[in-house]
Amino acid sequence: MIVVLKNNAPKNKQEQLVEWLKQMGLGVHVFTGEFQTVVGLIGDTSGVDMELIKSLDIVDSVKRISEPFKCCSRRFHPDDSVIDAGGVKIGGGHFAMIAGPCSVESEEQIVYVAKAVKAAGANLLRGGAFKPRTSPYDFQGLKAEGLELLKIARRETGLPIVTEIMSAGDLDLFRDVDVLQVGARNMQNFDLLKALGQQPKPVLLKRGLANTLRELLMSAEYIMASGNENVILCERGIRTYSDYMRNTLDLSAVPMLHELSHLPVVVDPSHATGIARMVEPMALAAAACGCDGLLIEVHSDPEHALSDGAQSLKPEQYAPLVKKVLAVRETVRG
Amino acid sequence: MIVVLKNNAPKNKQEQLVEWLKQMGLGVHVFTGEFQTVVGLIGDTSGVDMELIKSLDIVDSVKRISEPFKCCSRRFHPDDSVIDAGGVKIGGGHFAMIAGPCSVESEEQIVYVAKAVKAAGANLLRGGAFKPRTSPYDFQGLKAEGLELLKIARRETGLPIVTEIMSAGDLDLFRDVDVLQVGARNMQNFDLLKALGQQPKPVLLKRGLANTLRELLMSAEYIMASGNENVILCERGIRTYSDYMRNTLDLSAVPMLHELSHLPVVVDPSHATGIARMVEPMALAAAACGCDGLLIEVHSDPEHALSDGAQSLKPEQYAPLVKKVLAVRETVRG
Amino acid sequence: MIVVLKNNAPKNKQEQLVEWLKQMGLGVHVFTGEFQTVVGLIGDTSGVDMELIKSLDIVDSVKRISEPFKCCSRRFHPDDSVIDAGGVKIGGGHFAMIAGPCSVESEEQIVYVAKAVKAAGANLLRGGAFKPRTSPYDFQGLKAEGLELLKIARRETGLPIVTEIMSAGDLDLFRDVDVLQVGARNMQNFDLLKALGQQPKPVLLKRGLANTLRELLMSAEYIMASGNENVILCERGIRTYSDYMRNTLDLSAVPMLHELSHLPVVVDPSHATGIARMVEPMALAAAACGCDGLLIEVHSDPEHALSDGAQSLKPEQYAPLVKKVLAVRETVRG
Amino acid sequence: MIVVLKNNAPKNKQEQLVEWLKQMGLGVHVFTGEFQTVVGLIGDTSGVDMELIKSLDIVDSVKRISEPFKCCSRRFHPDDSVIDAGGVKIGGGHFAMIAGPCSVESEEQIVYVAKAVKAAGANLLRGGAFKPRTSPYDFQGLKAEGLELLKIARRETGLPIVTEIMSAGDLDLFRDVDVLQVGARNMQNFDLLKALGQQPKPVLLKRGLANTLRELLMSAEYIMASGNENVILCERGIRTYSDYMRNTLDLSAVPMLHELSHLPVVVDPSHATGIARMVEPMALAAAACGCDGLLIEVHSDPEHALSDGAQSLKPEQYAPLVKKVLAVRETVRG
Repeated sequence: MIVVLKNNAPKNKQEQLVEWLKQMGLGVHVFTGEFQTVVGLIGDTSGVDMELIKSLDIVDSVKRISEPFKCCSRRFHPDDSVIDAGGVKIGGGHFAMIAGPCSVESEEQIVYVAKAVKAAGANLLRGGAFKPRTSPYDFQGLKAEGLELLKIARRETGLPIVTEIMSAGDLDLFRDVDVLQVGARNMQNFDLLKALGQQPKPVLLKRGLANTLRELLMSAEYIMASGNENVILCERGIRTYSDYMRNTLDLSAVPMLHELSHLPVVVDPSHATGIARMVEPMALAAAACGCDGLLIEVHSDPEHALSDGAQSLKPEQYAPLVKKVLAVRETVRG
Repeated sequence: MIVVLKNNAPKNKQEQLVEWLKQMGLGVHVFTGEFQTVVGLIGDTSGVDMELIKSLDIVDSVKRISEPFKCCSRRFHPDDSVIDAGGVKIGGGHFAMIAGPCSVESEEQIVYVAKAVKAAGANLLRGGAFKPRTSPYDFQGLKAEGLELLKIARRETGLPIVTEIMSAGDLDLFRDVDVLQVGARNMQNFDLLKALGQQPKPVLLKRGLANTLRELLMSAEYIMASGNENVILCERGIRTYSDYMRNTLDLSAVPMLHELSHLPVVVDPSHATGIARMVEPMALAAAACGCDGLLIEVHSDPEHALSDGAQSLKPEQYAPLVKKVLAVRETVRG
Repeated sequence: MIVVLKNNAPKNKQEQLVEWLKQMGLGVHVFTGEFQTVVGLIGDTSGVDMELIKSLDIVDSVKRISEPFKCCSRRFHPDDSVIDAGGVKIGGGHFAMIAGPCSVESEEQIVYVAKAVKAAGANLLRGGAFKPRTSPYDFQGLKAEGLELLKIARRETGLPIVTEIMSAGDLDLFRDVDVLQVGARNMQNFDLLKALGQQPKPVLLKRGLANTLRELLMSAEYIMASGNENVILCERGIRTYSDYMRNTLDLSAVPMLHELSHLPVVVDPSHATGIARMVEPMALAAAACGCDGLLIEVHSDPEHALSDGAQSLKPEQYAPLVKKVLAVRETVRG
Repeated sequence: MIVVLKNNAPKNKQEQLVEWLKQMGLGVHVFTGEFQTVVGLIGDTSGVDMELIKSLDIVDSVKRISEPFKCCSRRFHPDDSVIDAGGVKIGGGHFAMIAGPCSVESEEQIVYVAKAVKAAGANLLRGGAFKPRTSPYDFQGLKAEGLELLKIARRETGLPIVTEIMSAGDLDLFRDVDVLQVGARNMQNFDLLKALGQQPKPVLLKRGLANTLRELLMSAEYIMASGNENVILCERGIRTYSDYMRNTLDLSAVPMLHELSHLPVVVDPSHATGIARMVEPMALAAAACGCDGLLIEVHSDPEHALSDGAQSLKPEQYAPLVKKVLAVRETVRG
């Protein structure tokens, strides 16, 4: 960690700071320049509160040299993590094709889709029971009943289930869910993260609307430092000034997260683009840059014209996509 | 609400859609153009799920004409709301000078600051007991003990207290707090918002890191639709590509929120800029464009050089700021 | 085009507006709702000044239904454009591997790199002679001399050359360049665009730092409406709050631009990421989602350790990348 | 300047780098830590090409300690610059009220507005003759004729004129203009900046759509380093994900630019918000945080209802705004 002091930082305050840093067990090197003094810290700085130091009135800026994350850092865990999601492996060469409808609507619907995506090549089933909605007047999901329907679909197909949890208070309802998803809006709901760190099921952690990769990794760190190492990272598009897409899918996050961390990285092209016909090209691109899985919305209800989601694929569109994704994966892995 | 259909939308699907919209009790007008068909909806569309309609495969886009919020809308409540915060009024001409340290650290500290800011002109005391931190290794606040220290400071000064709640599970601890703050990272923690809507204390709702004004108002709507009309909106800077400031303070939010809503709007220049010497100019600017209050970090601890926060003012800097703010307010109100 | 009028728009002003729109040769349909009146315009609205209408005081908002671009629109030109770049075809199934150093530095350097990238599979040579730099104190390129060196490299290898033009005043110097590049900072330098539209050489138009796809296409429209239809679009990353990358590569631009326009779309993963080891995964991803070419920085100077650019690949890294890109392309094209 | 080397940077390459930096006349201090080596540079580093150093393969990151700008830096020019704009002073306590229509349309219009804004308290006249428009099909301004009409209005009122130049090729037409404006889209059109640096008239430099303050100052540096020290900086809103405003006015730029530079800073609330009723609150806020002037759109044409610009004020709205702005200014200056 590099601490740059202000031009005019008084000597005695500089000494106080150096003393305090040494008491934290750090090696401290002071480098005095013409205009500024720079203090270099050596040792384990992950416990050093960067904001606190930055707030000192003699400090101009603070820069981390080594990253503040430990549990999720590749530096300390060179090998890829392989997460067991209800019997399906994710990461380290194992690929997750997670598919299903946006919302669980009925037993008929979820069982139909589950069978269809399984036949098309999916190995995990997704579906929303608790739905975070911008408006309190929009449909909030079937909640507990939706979870039960997902379990029926799992029984019928053998596919492990992935579904979103919105509150630590609901954890008991999720004991039998295979993968607990944290939505973008809750990426920094730290109480929820801590609670998920105190139970053993894998957590699929979506990147927040406008969060950086470092913040995403620090949120994974909350879960892991609380005791649960089974975290799957998910890129789902970030907020920009895009005019044709709902969000901007940041695929460079995939190789960069792989470089920084040993955790698997999956991509959600459905939410990122919001447009069904953009899902396939973005899924192929994600596979080409090395993601460990894809979260794709697939709906059913062929006789019910109204529910054809603009962002959801039909099962007959999903099946060829799976084939192409696997072919691209094979091509790039050589 | 205007629904634009795709070029090639088949007639029978168009009719299905129109039928379905009519069943929702809406007036439906169809306007057929050369390239596109546009469907206009009349009536109360706040309960219409825009995302659902957008997801239909015959729909190109959906545009709301009237806003989706009701409880917080000025259209239905032309007069400014006046919120009673532990006896201090906010909004409708009443101005809140909310001040205090970033974190509650000790009884001595918080009582000292409370007395100092009261003497300087503050009418509410702020201080963090539960602290949302990006890193699990950073100081997370004194929690329940911090709340008790805030109450001691309130007893000593008479200032009502404002402090952040991070989880619905903690609500019992906050029964005796005057204003419950929702932090930027929890602006779309909908379970927390609903819980805060089911208790009577005023809620200070901070705008999220990259949230729009409509999303902020919809989050206020969650609280109000759950039963609690005492909501104070807070602009605290948004995430951009700024190079010198922590965030970009969006002051145009103040007059625009006043136009859209009857709720009071306060501004937090300390978190927005992260730089103590920028707090005064931004506080004056906020007052000049009509905000209903200011949330400003003031620290104490004059003997403890290290805790001089770069973003916090000293009491002796806060006192003249209060005077100038009130002078600007008087000038613009004429 | 849909014009939404304000609630309280006086009748006589509404009629004036309708009259004026009819005089522009448009079909005008008025649809009166409970709260608002909506005016639908039919016919060729690409010449209608949307900003002007939006600025009328009785108008609430204006929404285009059909896009404002004509020359570059796929609606009017369903087939892919194939651009001839000094004998190399780009678009419509023809792939451009454009490679070379950031700056032209010497004859030895550019000829060495040109031969190396040709051997590795490149079919066009890039290199900067006029360099747009944020600081006036940074190296601004070899300018006219750099162009001459590029021509020498072309003579030696047969590779057509792509290089940036920064000012209409320099056009004479560029008469013999095969492809003229417009940099991100000049994407809305409309005088330069018009001048490039009045000469016949293909233009590689880079997307601006924070420009939308619609703005990119409107800038292409400037060139095409001025008489030059040979435009190649280039995605090179947009500005966000990214913490590890220089910019955020927006790959969803590739399929979306292909849907909106018949022009070829190339991708520059070197500038987008600024990190050499991110270039290959992003190049593969770009190929997987259907781009028509890649602009990649390759440097030489193996004996001169200092010039190993963090964003540039060595020729021995570029050769296997080309092979993988072509393999991915073949896989996704089936 | 601080250069952080990579973990595994080979010793001999480190030495090569240090040698090379010393040859540039810099003091070089090497600080070797446990994980990383940090190189500190002392002396005039404004001529050091940061991108070049960052691109070396042994370098992890580069951080400037002192800013890269010289001519515009307050460090070297502690006193505020006062710019003479056709006889009207701007900066250092002198306030510019620049007003006028978006576009010059006719002699009648511009003379009418010029007289009206002068009566209302404006001391400079603005009006667009060359108009940068996103679409080639939109009105591009009256060009040379518009400049002549502005001069007529100047003759009639004595107000100096401010108008936008889009291309260095047009400079001859602008010899007699009092202040040459560079629009947001041309902020990094470096050839235009250099040309404006080689003529003596003041330049009003607008911040680009998504440019940082450092980039704005470096563009000012281009003009000043070319010989013209008469630069006025202008904040006009930046691009974000705002839902109700055209852009996000970044008022914190005002005090921060004043801290970094001695140049005057004016604010354009009309373009920033795009909404007439937001202009007054934002103008007052800008005055409260210390700006040196305001650029405000005022239109005329009272009999021609259609041209009531949503973003333009009427003269009768502008007059009370001027009074309030001056009152706020007096209040904050004490």
